[in-house]
Amino acid sequence: MIPHDTQLQIGSLLFDGLDQIDLTGPFEVLSQIPNSTYRIFAKTAEPVRDLHGLRLTPDALIADAPQLDLLHVPGGYGQEALMEDIALLAWIRGQASGAKCVFSVCTGALICGAAGLLKGRRATTHWASMHLLPFFGATPVNKRVVMSGNMIFAAGVTAGIDGALRVAAELRGDEVAQAIQLAMQYAPEPPFNSGTPEAAPPDISERVRHSLSAMTAQRERTARRVAQRLGIDVSALSAS
Amino acid sequence: MIPHDTQLQIGSLLFDGLDQIDLTGPFEVLSQIPNSTYRIFAKTAEPVRDLHGLRLTPDALIADAPQLDLLHVPGGYGQEALMEDIALLAWIRGQASGAKCVFSVCTGALICGAAGLLKGRRATTHWASMHLLPFFGATPVNKRVVMSGNMIFAAGVTAGIDGALRVAAELRGDEVAQAIQLAMQYAPEPPFNSGTPEAAPPDISERVRHSLSAMTAQRERTARRVAQRLGIDVSALSAS
Repeated sequence: MIPHDTQLQIGSLLFDGLDQIDLTGPFEVLSQIPNSTYRIFAKTAEPVRDLHGLRLTPDALIADAPQLDLLHVPGGYGQEALMEDIALLAWIRGQASGAKCVFSVCTGALICGAAGLLKGRRATTHWASMHLLPFFGATPVNKRVVMSGNMIFAAGVTAGIDGALRVAAELRGDEVAQAIQLAMQYAPEPPFNSGTPEAAPPDISERVRHSLSAMTAQRERTARRVAQRLGIDVSALSAS
Repeated sequence: MIPHDTQLQIGSLLFDGLDQIDLTGPFEVLSQIPNSTYRIFAKTAEPVRDLHGLRLTPDALIADAPQLDLLHVPGGYGQEALMEDIALLAWIRGQASGAKCVFSVCTGALICGAAGLLKGRRATTHWASMHLLPFFGATPVNKRVVMSGNMIFAAGVTAGIDGALRVAAELRGDEVAQAIQLAMQYAPEPPFNSGTPEAAPPDISERVRHSLSAMTAQRERTARRVAQRLGIDVSALSAS
């Protein structure tokens, strides 16, 4: 927990083809952390589209970012391009070396992995990409939120809300996180029990896994190239 | 449930000062409904800021909207201005008369109320505004999602995700909603039990209620004016 009178610099990374709720779920929490400056950073100033078409606009350029206390890295299909963007990965690595916390959501963990931040860590990501974490030297943990040193990993998509409340508690204490949770009336009641492949009806799991299979295969090819760059031995890792 | 081969027109209303996750939570669900066109509508084409500063841009103008099958009305402090915007309220009323479903989130219910859509209905809204529903002729129901004829009401803020999954099930069947829920890994695990005033620690509830009190009082003044316009007798309603 950081002293309440220490102003925090908080930033989320915005990029084309992200999954918008990986950003907007945590936004609802992070934007309410007391005594902080929260901005959304991107490589360029133009609006981007999320993978379902939502138009989002950054507040500032990553080139102008100060050292952040909290860096939030969302995921979504657009993570593919970032995983081999050497300049962006260097920026993430630099920020991570000085940040109190790096917080990844969904396949944002793969971006952090490509930046070399996952070596030797326990981590989580979207259920369909869990098997890719070892390509970055991480041990997959099938939990909704995983804390590991100065990193906090949220599982897929909406797990970012749970993760962000944990981040808020780490930075400002439980009572601040509880007050934010109440203001956003976060007492979820999913109408179905279908939020994980273990819980969902088997035919639904199979259908969704199949619908994601081309993207998952693409991610694995990218992960293999990244592993080679990072010098990680993937010979023992089986294909998905 | 609508036949799967019937194309659906879905629209969300965007306005200055909305609470972004009232829109972006449902967006994640509604944008994945099969065989549908989903757009975000606003009075003007310019980007708006949500109440915490997120910049969102509409896809189209309400003046150009077709008859929608589903109209989604988010809330947030900006709802105040809309409650006395006669032209906008007429647009909502017109859409509602032809829509299969009107879906309000949080204080979006107050906008729908100001459009005259709540008379004689059971409804819900954000916990801090529940006592205002009778000003629009509605009966408050302290549930996370309330269905009433062709309207579906979600309670505060994040309840929009639960409500949107119900909407998806109503329009396209349970299996479609379950597949969307799995893709977005919606198996929430809030780190605290603090999402309702009944569940939260009493001092947290008191503090958050106090922090919202000026806005709540403002909303009540607006609700009284609207009630007079709608011809609803509010003499029996006590002040908050």
